[in-house]
Amino acid sequence: MPDALDALFKPRSVAVIGASAREHSVGHSVVANLQAFGYVGAKYPVHPKATEICGLKAYPSLDAIPGPVDLAHIIIPSSQVPRAMAECGRKGVRAVIINSGGFKEIGAEGERLQDAFLAEARRHGIRVLGPNCQGIINTDPAHRAYCNFTNTLPQAGSISLAALSGGVGGFMLQSLADLGVGLRMYASNGNACDISIAEILRYWGDDAGTRAILLYTEGFADPKAFYEVARDVAARKPVLAMKAGRTEQGAKAASSHTGSLAGVDIATELIFEKAGILGFSDEGELIRAAMAFASQPIPRGPRVAILTNTGGPAVIATDVLVSIGLQVPTLGEASVARLRAALLPQAALENPVDVIATAGAEHFRQALEVLLEDDAIDALYVNFVTPSFTDTQAIAREIVAVNQRRCKPLVCNLMTDLSQERFRVTQRILLEGGVPCYGYPGEAARALGALHRYGVLRARPCAAPQVFDDVDAARARKVIAAAQRARRTVLAADEVATLFECYRIPLADWAMADSADAAVAAAERIGLPVVLKIDSPMASHKSDVGGVAVNLRDAAAVRAAVRDMQQRLAHLGPLRFMVQKFMPAGQELIVGATRSGTLGHLLMFGLGGIHVEVLKDVVFKLGPLSAPEAESMLDGIRAKALLRGVRGQPGVCREALVTLLQRLSMLLSDLPMIEELDLNPVLGYADSVCAVDGRVRVGPVPENSR
Amino acid sequence: MPDALDALFKPRSVAVIGASAREHSVGHSVVANLQAFGYVGAKYPVHPKATEICGLKAYPSLDAIPGPVDLAHIIIPSSQVPRAMAECGRKGVRAVIINSGGFKEIGAEGERLQDAFLAEARRHGIRVLGPNCQGIINTDPAHRAYCNFTNTLPQAGSISLAALSGGVGGFMLQSLADLGVGLRMYASNGNACDISIAEILRYWGDDAGTRAILLYTEGFADPKAFYEVARDVAARKPVLAMKAGRTEQGAKAASSHTGSLAGVDIATELIFEKAGILGFSDEGELIRAAMAFASQPIPRGPRVAILTNTGGPAVIATDVLVSIGLQVPTLGEASVARLRAALLPQAALENPVDVIATAGAEHFRQALEVLLEDDAIDALYVNFVTPSFTDTQAIAREIVAVNQRRCKPLVCNLMTDLSQERFRVTQRILLEGGVPCYGYPGEAARALGALHRYGVLRARPCAAPQVFDDVDAARARKVIAAAQRARRTVLAADEVATLFECYRIPLADWAMADSADAAVAAAERIGLPVVLKIDSPMASHKSDVGGVAVNLRDAAAVRAAVRDMQQRLAHLGPLRFMVQKFMPAGQELIVGATRSGTLGHLLMFGLGGIHVEVLKDVVFKLGPLSAPEAESMLDGIRAKALLRGVRGQPGVCREALVTLLQRLSMLLSDLPMIEELDLNPVLGYADSVCAVDGRVRVGPVPENSR
Repeated sequence: MPDALDALFKPRSVAVIGASAREHSVGHSVVANLQAFGYVGAKYPVHPKATEICGLKAYPSLDAIPGPVDLAHIIIPSSQVPRAMAECGRKGVRAVIINSGGFKEIGAEGERLQDAFLAEARRHGIRVLGPNCQGIINTDPAHRAYCNFTNTLPQAGSISLAALSGGVGGFMLQSLADLGVGLRMYASNGNACDISIAEILRYWGDDAGTRAILLYTEGFADPKAFYEVARDVAARKPVLAMKAGRTEQGAKAASSHTGSLAGVDIATELIFEKAGILGFSDEGELIRAAMAFASQPIPRGPRVAILTNTGGPAVIATDVLVSIGLQVPTLGEASVARLRAALLPQAALENPVDVIATAGAEHFRQALEVLLEDDAIDALYVNFVTPSFTDTQAIAREIVAVNQRRCKPLVCNLMTDLSQERFRVTQRILLEGGVPCYGYPGEAARALGALHRYGVLRARPCAAPQVFDDVDAARARKVIAAAQRARRTVLAADEVATLFECYRIPLADWAMADSADAAVAAAERIGLPVVLKIDSPMASHKSDVGGVAVNLRDAAAVRAAVRDMQQRLAHLGPLRFMVQKFMPAGQELIVGATRSGTLGHLLMFGLGGIHVEVLKDVVFKLGPLSAPEAESMLDGIRAKALLRGVRGQPGVCREALVTLLQRLSMLLSDLPMIEELDLNPVLGYADSVCAVDGRVRVGPVPENSR
Repeated sequence: MPDALDALFKPRSVAVIGASAREHSVGHSVVANLQAFGYVGAKYPVHPKATEICGLKAYPSLDAIPGPVDLAHIIIPSSQVPRAMAECGRKGVRAVIINSGGFKEIGAEGERLQDAFLAEARRHGIRVLGPNCQGIINTDPAHRAYCNFTNTLPQAGSISLAALSGGVGGFMLQSLADLGVGLRMYASNGNACDISIAEILRYWGDDAGTRAILLYTEGFADPKAFYEVARDVAARKPVLAMKAGRTEQGAKAASSHTGSLAGVDIATELIFEKAGILGFSDEGELIRAAMAFASQPIPRGPRVAILTNTGGPAVIATDVLVSIGLQVPTLGEASVARLRAALLPQAALENPVDVIATAGAEHFRQALEVLLEDDAIDALYVNFVTPSFTDTQAIAREIVAVNQRRCKPLVCNLMTDLSQERFRVTQRILLEGGVPCYGYPGEAARALGALHRYGVLRARPCAAPQVFDDVDAARARKVIAAAQRARRTVLAADEVATLFECYRIPLADWAMADSADAAVAAAERIGLPVVLKIDSPMASHKSDVGGVAVNLRDAAAVRAAVRDMQQRLAHLGPLRFMVQKFMPAGQELIVGATRSGTLGHLLMFGLGGIHVEVLKDVVFKLGPLSAPEAESMLDGIRAKALLRGVRGQPGVCREALVTLLQRLSMLLSDLPMIEELDLNPVLGYADSVCAVDGRVRVGPVPENSR
């Protein structure tokens, strides 16, 4: 059974509705591109009057076309699109690209038109790319198709590129072409009313000719659908992505710590990370990384050997490599000895290996051999300046020979003057030999860094979130249901405590009381000293109103505290109190969660107090958490040394903390109606952790949630 | 009186010693470059046998040359250089460039040769560039000179570039040429045995044709000389610099907090900052910034208007601009109204202003006018994609017209296909019109960011370090001299306290005691409670050995503490104690200093405890400190909010802390023999600050120190 997107990317015939004989018009460019790119299927320009466009017979309407039409490319005013879609239905068209704008992006009137053509498309089972989009390119020799109005004519290759924005897609396409990176397929889906980036990603995941995928997005209409496809595809091939602009998430003014600290864009980055997608924040770096992914293997480790024929740029390369987490280790004695025998006397034999500017091809060849065979080296960085007095083309051929053995990744910083023919030939030898070439030391280093970062990402421990079988989900659900029936969104203190109990999240011993006598009895049952806290829906910040008394050491103190609050806080109505075990001092921690659309919860972890409020030293992950993910949260804060213990302090029991995070993650997965949750503070001890306060806000269960 | 470097950069005649007729050799390239570049002075190839090289009459020796020789360019084996230098002396040569390597960089034998030719040069008053260097280029039409073996033939322009490393200098030269940025002068000085980067910088500071200066360095032989020239030149024109590689400073394993936290490279960055040099850590960003500095004015403020004809790249530009501290504010009503009247109905009128892809030159012109005339906008960012259906050359001419009014800086992200002639012409119109063009949205944004960062740097408050007239420098010097006479490098506790007293740096009241009785008497005089601390050269970490007792509330406690330490620490010999006022809790602060070569002291400030040890949240500045510099240290730590006070805490008296830093700075300036100094902790209160412990290590006074 053919894939639904085959008609888009591998059409056997294309009709261009709105084809034009006027040069430089969009309707002309689309037809001209089909011709220029060597599309071998049937090409049908549709134009009310013209009989020939770009040397092709033109037809007055779709109906007039003799053969079947797989793909219709529509370039007519938006108001005419619904009618054209109906014609496509009658003709049996399977997919449509709509270049035209004037739909949802311009407001209500456009949205009405978009809904109208989409209803027509659905009626006939037509898939739609766009509207307000560029189109597609497919360089697969069996299907060469260019249904797009851009100018760039890419070489065939192994990188596929999808961009929501045609402007960004267009310049990325051009940038890849400028670097000599071959393209497999391209798509820009504009308004994305039907075919999504997720669906395109899935299609390319199954395309054997696509070695790596580049994505540019400004947000996801359905992050869950994207995440699920991305996780699956990223497990099979590299997916490199960049997200620009602000998320809904970021715009939301969140009331809890978690929300306000998450800020813009954290959620998308976390989706990328959890799905195994390599995220980029710089578009140039993304494009240059793609060049490395197009031809290079992934390094097994971080150890880079730099081979250079000039000193300074290798210093810059070293700085950059080290700063992005790679290593430039000193070479072992055996390699140094081999290099000494092979190279000129002035050569530097450590790492960077400087063969010096007068080195010839044979010096390069021997040095490359040594570095390739050195087991303590994972990747090669070649820093190649082209002096007028050396045979740079012969050197380039040696670099290519080593590169084509494909056993270690290799990048090249080629510093040359391309206004001279002999150096253009040198560059061509390298590029045709699959050597990624860059124009600055740092650019080559960061491209190698991307390969390494991907290696680390791919090797990250993956585990399913732990399922605890000692939890009582049914009771937890009942607690929340009762609150919801009472139209309360913020749970009462005892409800929060019960939720934690159901999931065995450790909380300091507690009891509720509504009088001084009851509080004293509770304190004596729990054991003194205790803390007394009011629980009032009218005072969400109870310590701000003087509703907390700590370290109450005897019955009299408990009684006095209750009476004092009853007096001072009478305006809050009859008071309920939580009496809780007063815990000894420990490392203050904070754990929280907010719901992130349909994608489950965003969990937060940090040290409490100034670490959260002043230093913003917190880490976020998308739930549900596996054990390695929970571990990585502990390692993700700047102050992580405090968890291990410093200055004679004992630190925090890591196992207990990881378990708490995983239990909390399970609670959140089971209870998707939770919108916000805070455990603040959690006290960390050498042998345990214990929450002492919590807050939970619930809402309606989102549709389509996990 | 002619400048000493005129003979190097503006020679009236050049002899090439080691000229060669063999194509692609260095000796041939140098002569060919002189010819190709149109050097108008007398050109004398020197070769033992050849009679003609590159169409020029060749001479067997310097002596055989008929006229005077200003500059000799030497390309012969290192062993022959001292003899050649002697010949230069006899001939009256004023400056020499030595391309040849094989000198100090290869070890002792090479160093001997370098010393030999240098002695000869000094004897004759010859200035030397190199050895092991590339040479110079000067594009000034009156002096066009190319004494260099590289291939790049730069266009004349206003940017001068100096690089220690020829490899880096070479590719930077090429990168500037690739971007179409014109060069004024170039120099790469290799081993830098005589003419330094500082001297070249000074020369270009005085060159009216140099609008901005680029520097690449891997360290300074004489940082003080560099700093003094740089400060002077940077006050007159932009100096953009990058430093790669590790400093001596970084290699030094420092024993105090200050040293170990300063790490590699901080000192050079601090020199740049203090001198008013714009520092870069990415070589590509430096080169692209140079393109903007070559033609653009400095923005008056951070408010950028983005004009685009496609949406997505403007989103990326916005992200980058905002992330580097610029603003993309919403336009005011008046501008929006003018844009609405001028642009197509689908145009976006907020900022970014999207004229949309079908916009023509008139739309661009009108939109640019509006943004240029809007007083709430400081800089223009033009995002220009070249659709096939618009007259992109006409648009380019409108951008140039606005750019040439030079009232606001303008950068252009030009997204086009340069394989097409019409777009190459479009680009040429922009470049010839002085519009800096970049290939990625982020690159254009960061170039604009560099202009803005320079504007901020130039506008920073400058003040002389405050001179306090209530200090007793003579007494402080006597204290140190006494310690040095006793061959002690670490000062005793009372010596440290006396130094602080001399400079009125607040220290908790103190007295020394060598017995329990004396300690009790001191405690009663100071006022209880007190702290008791041993002062022993054998225990530099006195709390680690149990040599500190705090909060001693009465005479008995003081006595007991003395006896306890005398017993436990008997192995340290007869003990001396410092008895000190026990201060109430305050915000823990740490202030420190290490000496940074000849450049004075590197001062450090941070919050104490975990902020230093775990979070490494500290800030460094090169002394001496002005009041604005001391202020900026307080604002330079991540946890700066704690100084202002959070969570009901009172914060720290800013004025007292700034005064303490300035008094400490004066102490250090007056006492250059101090190698390390710590005030740790300083306690900060709402109305004062007070040091409670200090440590000072002294050494010999460095030569040539400020």
